[in-house]
Amino acid sequence: MADIQETKESLSESLQQVISLLEKHRLIENMVHNQEMSNHELIESLVHKQNLNELQKKLELLHPADVAYILEALPLEQRLDVWELVKADRDGEILLEVSDAVRQTLIADMDSDELLAAAERLDTDELADLAPDLPKDVLQDLLDSLDAQNRARLQSALSYSDDAVGSIMDFDIVTIREDITLEVALRYMRRLGGLPDHTDKLFVVDRDDVLHGVLPLKRLVVSDLDAKVADVMSEDAVIFHPEDIADDAAKAFERYDLVTAPVVDESGKLVGRVTVDAVMDLIREEAESDMLSMAGLREEEDFFASVWKSVQNRWAWLAINLITALIASRVIGLFEGSIEKIVALAALMPIVAGVGGNSGNQTTTMIVRGLALGQVASHNMKSLITKELGVALLNGLLWGGVIGAVAYALYGSYPLGLVMMSAMTLNLLLAALMGVVIPLMMNKIGRDPAVGSSVLITAMTDSGGFFIFLGLATIFLI
Amino acid sequence: MADIQETKESLSESLQQVISLLEKHRLIENMVHNQEMSNHELIESLVHKQNLNELQKKLELLHPADVAYILEALPLEQRLDVWELVKADRDGEILLEVSDAVRQTLIADMDSDELLAAAERLDTDELADLAPDLPKDVLQDLLDSLDAQNRARLQSALSYSDDAVGSIMDFDIVTIREDITLEVALRYMRRLGGLPDHTDKLFVVDRDDVLHGVLPLKRLVVSDLDAKVADVMSEDAVIFHPEDIADDAAKAFERYDLVTAPVVDESGKLVGRVTVDAVMDLIREEAESDMLSMAGLREEEDFFASVWKSVQNRWAWLAINLITALIASRVIGLFEGSIEKIVALAALMPIVAGVGGNSGNQTTTMIVRGLALGQVASHNMKSLITKELGVALLNGLLWGGVIGAVAYALYGSYPLGLVMMSAMTLNLLLAALMGVVIPLMMNKIGRDPAVGSSVLITAMTDSGGFFIFLGLATIFLI
Repeated sequence: MADIQETKESLSESLQQVISLLEKHRLIENMVHNQEMSNHELIESLVHKQNLNELQKKLELLHPADVAYILEALPLEQRLDVWELVKADRDGEILLEVSDAVRQTLIADMDSDELLAAAERLDTDELADLAPDLPKDVLQDLLDSLDAQNRARLQSALSYSDDAVGSIMDFDIVTIREDITLEVALRYMRRLGGLPDHTDKLFVVDRDDVLHGVLPLKRLVVSDLDAKVADVMSEDAVIFHPEDIADDAAKAFERYDLVTAPVVDESGKLVGRVTVDAVMDLIREEAESDMLSMAGLREEEDFFASVWKSVQNRWAWLAINLITALIASRVIGLFEGSIEKIVALAALMPIVAGVGGNSGNQTTTMIVRGLALGQVASHNMKSLITKELGVALLNGLLWGGVIGAVAYALYGSYPLGLVMMSAMTLNLLLAALMGVVIPLMMNKIGRDPAVGSSVLITAMTDSGGFFIFLGLATIFLI
Repeated sequence: MADIQETKESLSESLQQVISLLEKHRLIENMVHNQEMSNHELIESLVHKQNLNELQKKLELLHPADVAYILEALPLEQRLDVWELVKADRDGEILLEVSDAVRQTLIADMDSDELLAAAERLDTDELADLAPDLPKDVLQDLLDSLDAQNRARLQSALSYSDDAVGSIMDFDIVTIREDITLEVALRYMRRLGGLPDHTDKLFVVDRDDVLHGVLPLKRLVVSDLDAKVADVMSEDAVIFHPEDIADDAAKAFERYDLVTAPVVDESGKLVGRVTVDAVMDLIREEAESDMLSMAGLREEEDFFASVWKSVQNRWAWLAINLITALIASRVIGLFEGSIEKIVALAALMPIVAGVGGNSGNQTTTMIVRGLALGQVASHNMKSLITKELGVALLNGLLWGGVIGAVAYALYGSYPLGLVMMSAMTLNLLLAALMGVVIPLMMNKIGRDPAVGSSVLITAMTDSGGFFIFLGLATIFLI
């Protein structure tokens, strides 16, 4: 029995062992480099060989997912050292487990023959995951090496967009006919000798592969052996089409607690299945990509990516942020005359802008989440806006009052305190309105409301906050 | 067969139907209210009754998860109208499916007897999910109504913290002995007549309930019927303890593609199991709570919560934000003399602060994610900081150069442009350092690095940015 605590400890332990073995290895290589040891001596060095052997043995004992974890946690140079030591027949499995960014660094280190050899050991659905990262010539060689059925499967899997069910389905389907008895079905299973991972149901099809129902293993083992498959199977299973949106499929998995589900084409023919592990990966990836895109990162980033690669990943949103900051700066520029007269305005204006931004982001986050769950739509938009404006008004009077009092205490001007409170309230109302409207608009024009909502809100509340505060001050104080 | 597209359409269709039926219902009630129709007439009103009947029938046909979806998408008043119509025997299932915030609104609308009746229909593990939201007297009555085994189970389930495996496990375990043949095992299954949801394996225990192995159904159906359970079962299954961290269990489910896994106590006795649907809920909840807490929302919020409830949910971070904004404001206050002399400083300073905040948040988001995946630790902290400082230096020189040129173009002062560029570079370096250090420190002292990292980073880059820019300007320009 593998205790979860032990698993976890041994995983971080494994990482530590790999690192210390690598360090010994580096030490000796450096000695050669510094001429302290001749190359010949090195080759003979028992210590060196022992280290590498030990490391290689260690890696062989680990689950592919665990090797992937270690590769991801190592800086590039050490990562490639470890990658060299991984037995070629495990390359494919491990490439599937690492993140996209790390996969690219590993593939860049392999030649065409190695890649082809690694890919040939994979199932068609796994190949489809790997294919977008392979060099074109390797992909072509690979397609040529497949038989007709698998080539057609791979090509169709590659033709679906990333967010379609077709891109997450696999082909590990076990089918039976409806007119046989359970006894015959069980005999057939035993002849197969094994079932694919996650098999919780068999798919009942006719001779044209049209799906008629599903037979859960659970029912197979508890039902009378003389019963016909047709009498025991379930006919109201949830089914998907390859072009369905993968995220909807994930919601159906959660809603109806599925483990696997059949995928059929428009004529009802069974073409594949979706499993819960693919769905879990999808949920995890979507949550991560929402988080990354809200922070303005274009994609997942390898922790040990070069500085230049990271700059490329992040520059787009920084540039947009720079432009919005410049606009806000020009808004302030309009009121330079007022600031010259009352310099306290310069010190107070970032408070109005900052709190508005924070509050607007709270609203946006709620709406983005509601859109993702399908709970926000046109029929309740009005009541949402009303509510958010109410929250903003209350917060504005409350915190605006506090900050107005502070402004009065600091600068001894009663009107300044009042302007501060009014500006704060108005900017929070603006933040609430924009916080609801911006993500809904982005959703309406078909864009992901998570991407950039935060930057747009902050731009509005910065420029708006400066304009409201300095404008009120110019009218009432100068 | 239930087509996913149909499922989805019928779900939003159902919502639309419920809303229009509710509207008709309201219309009539309003007429009564406005004295256009006597109460007596209303009661007799066939239309009215028909509407409610139709609505009730509609609701009966829906899956509990779908009723939950509709309840969550309705404003409070309409939500309670629908809740009234749900048959009492489905209350419990539906309460389990709705979000925490919505559950509270529904429970508040039920009296003790209704709650007790709803709760009594649930399994012990489901009760454990519901219990924290029940009034104390109902919970006590409930405990009294259970038999000894289930009372002990519920009490122990309630004793585990929210993030422990014990809080997500259930008790739907099917056990067999290792000395019987598969034929006998299958006969036993057939006598049971049905297996719990998600059963993909049977648990092999001795007479003291100590777990010896697991027998996947997949193996049961393909193996020779004369074989002994002991020869076919797997002995290296992943096992959990009730006090293990639930998030680690979720990672093990993803890593090793599990559907169910046994939970044992310290003496190796089987006490429950974890299923993949509980793990999926956990992953979804964690991703959501990370997103909410980064935006400074304390907890999930009902979309139709009262203004006052929403203010309570959001006030804490707004207050912290107000304090950090005030500190930044005092930093500017230190340099009021300089701003009085060169008013352009007031317009330019928010750019330095804003871009620093955005860049720092990009770094923090990366680190928070790396910590969650276990890829960031002390051994690679140095190389992470070096890399982030490199990215910051490059971005600072690049964008600082651009913005310096803009400042020169706007205000015609060459030294002002240079100060702008230097301040931007220094603030980006500060943002990079803090972006790595703050989440790592929070993690080290045992706090969730997602909560508040963003507010702390922004506070640093605001105050720091103002200080660096105005400080440099005071030294070199005045």
